[in-house]
Amino acid sequence: MLIKNGNVIIFENDDVKVKNLDVRIKGSKIEEIANNLLPEEGEKVIDATNKVVMPGLINTHAHIAMSIFRGTFEGSDLYTWLSEKIWPIEAKLTEEQVYDASMLSIIEMISTGTTCVNDHYFFSKKIREALEESKMRAVITRVLMDSDGEETSNSRIQEFVDLYETRDDNNELITYTVSPHGLYTCSDKLLETSRELAIKYNLPIHTHFLESISEIEDIKRLHGDTAAKVLKKYFDGIHTILAHGVKLKDEDLEILKDMDCGIAHNPISNFRLGCKIADITKYTNYGINVALGTDGQGSGNNLDMFETMKIAGLAQGGIHENEERIGSKDIIKMATINGAKLLGLEDKIGSIEVGKKADIIIVDISPKLDNIKMLPNNDVISNLVYNTEGNSVDTSIINGEILMESRKINFVDTEKIISKFAK
Amino acid sequence: MLIKNGNVIIFENDDVKVKNLDVRIKGSKIEEIANNLLPEEGEKVIDATNKVVMPGLINTHAHIAMSIFRGTFEGSDLYTWLSEKIWPIEAKLTEEQVYDASMLSIIEMISTGTTCVNDHYFFSKKIREALEESKMRAVITRVLMDSDGEETSNSRIQEFVDLYETRDDNNELITYTVSPHGLYTCSDKLLETSRELAIKYNLPIHTHFLESISEIEDIKRLHGDTAAKVLKKYFDGIHTILAHGVKLKDEDLEILKDMDCGIAHNPISNFRLGCKIADITKYTNYGINVALGTDGQGSGNNLDMFETMKIAGLAQGGIHENEERIGSKDIIKMATINGAKLLGLEDKIGSIEVGKKADIIIVDISPKLDNIKMLPNNDVISNLVYNTEGNSVDTSIINGEILMESRKINFVDTEKIISKFAK
Repeated sequence: MLIKNGNVIIFENDDVKVKNLDVRIKGSKIEEIANNLLPEEGEKVIDATNKVVMPGLINTHAHIAMSIFRGTFEGSDLYTWLSEKIWPIEAKLTEEQVYDASMLSIIEMISTGTTCVNDHYFFSKKIREALEESKMRAVITRVLMDSDGEETSNSRIQEFVDLYETRDDNNELITYTVSPHGLYTCSDKLLETSRELAIKYNLPIHTHFLESISEIEDIKRLHGDTAAKVLKKYFDGIHTILAHGVKLKDEDLEILKDMDCGIAHNPISNFRLGCKIADITKYTNYGINVALGTDGQGSGNNLDMFETMKIAGLAQGGIHENEERIGSKDIIKMATINGAKLLGLEDKIGSIEVGKKADIIIVDISPKLDNIKMLPNNDVISNLVYNTEGNSVDTSIINGEILMESRKINFVDTEKIISKFAK
Repeated sequence: MLIKNGNVIIFENDDVKVKNLDVRIKGSKIEEIANNLLPEEGEKVIDATNKVVMPGLINTHAHIAMSIFRGTFEGSDLYTWLSEKIWPIEAKLTEEQVYDASMLSIIEMISTGTTCVNDHYFFSKKIREALEESKMRAVITRVLMDSDGEETSNSRIQEFVDLYETRDDNNELITYTVSPHGLYTCSDKLLETSRELAIKYNLPIHTHFLESISEIEDIKRLHGDTAAKVLKKYFDGIHTILAHGVKLKDEDLEILKDMDCGIAHNPISNFRLGCKIADITKYTNYGINVALGTDGQGSGNNLDMFETMKIAGLAQGGIHENEERIGSKDIIKMATINGAKLLGLEDKIGSIEVGKKADIIIVDISPKLDNIKMLPNNDVISNLVYNTEGNSVDTSIINGEILMESRKINFVDTEKIISKFAK
């Protein structure tokens, strides 16, 4: 496959550049990036004139089966919402509902430019089924917690082991994390078990971390120490994905900067749940890797990573008054290469480079009514972050396979899935 | 004209409701709102099944000719940006550029659901020309300031008087404000002149007010008092539109709440310029009218009021931690009826009510790929605020005239204007 004449987003040293280049894909990989490449016989050619060719977006924290909870959060706080609206419904979910809700989210992701998602939920075999059918790249898990007792906790551990042991080693698209829900919902014993599982299977940890102010005290009460110290005690030396990290103080950052961990920043969810703004400018200055995520649709509204990029960029102006802060180029990297690093996949994905897997999206920036918010296009990078919507994604390629072309999804009967959620 | 079977947004007492109703328009006004209205002979019928029918959005603070500056702001502060990037270019603008840039913005507004804009700029006759041709509703002005000396100030005052005196009294779509740029850029003398003009012509005042932290000291230095006290001294008794109002303290709010004024809140611009977040939850609790605006595209990114609604709603969670705050229904009112009140036009526009002018937009919420972020549509109001984009607007009606139908703009050659800004 040859993608011709696109405005290709290239990471060069620390810079982000837009270059007119052709990109050749062979099998699952990017084979050649150059000017004026000629199509080989029988090679499919995609004309990317007036389009941006960029690495697929990486959503580093989501709960894709939670699409059914879209629009259920209004004005309250995290705990009230979880206990009154989410948990009672989750207790009654069926496997079929989880499959359909996951597929709805996969369509939402592919159609808005996300090519890899880091999920955090249960009913994980059904979620995996939907992911495998779509051929989307994903990191999955079975969430662990024991705040409701040891028996349910043990069955969750068993479900995780079963999920991992039944993996398909020939499927390179799906990888796994060990996911204790959060330090405030997992006992010392379960954190120890999580550590052992991560070491045994050589997997990263994925956990909620200091999303909400009340966690600070809850963690101290449960573990007798600060969140960062508890994290270091159990997961030092293990690659760790920390979802949220809104409430990090300098003393926490001093600990985290020497650990193998990074932050999945979910600004929309943080805003909606009244958790305030994570200071990702500061975290970055500490040398901590920051990537982006959407959280589930209940609190995060949607899985459109273009929207998350925009709001992540804007939000820093809410806490840095007339100060240097994260810019558009940083945001583009957070949504791509930083996400790959956070998921431990930076050798495979996250940038358009020869030898990497072809996880690529093509975004329509042609001058037309639906793109009027990009005109005049004085700065392509700024427009990608601040004036582009997921619906501008024209084509999505994962592992060298086209999952959407000219906005036609080709891995599932889209209308059938959509009709299940229409009312 | 009869709009059939829509999900109509109705303001009832203090509530916002979604009702399945038909809406009949006769001439420029809404004539009837009821169930099962039958088309009269020859009446145009618009099928609004799977669509929302709502009041047109009102953008209460913009500089529509500034579309040409889109994407020029990156990471710096307001004053650096204005002095290094904006003012040097503005000094060289031609009338033709202003006309084209204004028309580009009008297309952007109509295609994303804005039916009335409160503009704040110069070259105002060219801006008026574009507005008159498009038949958009607008409030315009010629901005006054004298921080650069008396001579230029006098010519600005003369331009304003000339603009107003050459108005077309038969054109009910265009109204006017007197617009001293800001208290920090206008002397006592110019504020007094502004007051006299507002009284003489019976017009509202429209001014920038406490957008950025440095203004507090600048105003004290220039006028010897706090911003709110200076405002009261000159404009008490005159309807006053305050753009931004980010830096309002309780002592300011105590003064403003008894004045005939309100806030045009521009959250996207405030974020981008590093001005932090205006506490519109608190302002509302003080009884002060808050409406929404986009500011110009340089700092505000775009004129899509759906994006402004979303970010206005989200932003309050950045300052109110686990506290009651502005919700989706409040946001819908801020973008419509509160905007009408702020512009002094609440008797004419801002809600779907019999007798009001027919400024109505029809938004496509049908279950399809481009609307997947709305599925499942558990809460129409929440989805309008958090998961709808301006491009979902299907049809825009102003003063009973259709300016866009099924996303076809009919007041200008859209492709021609767009081609001028394509590169």
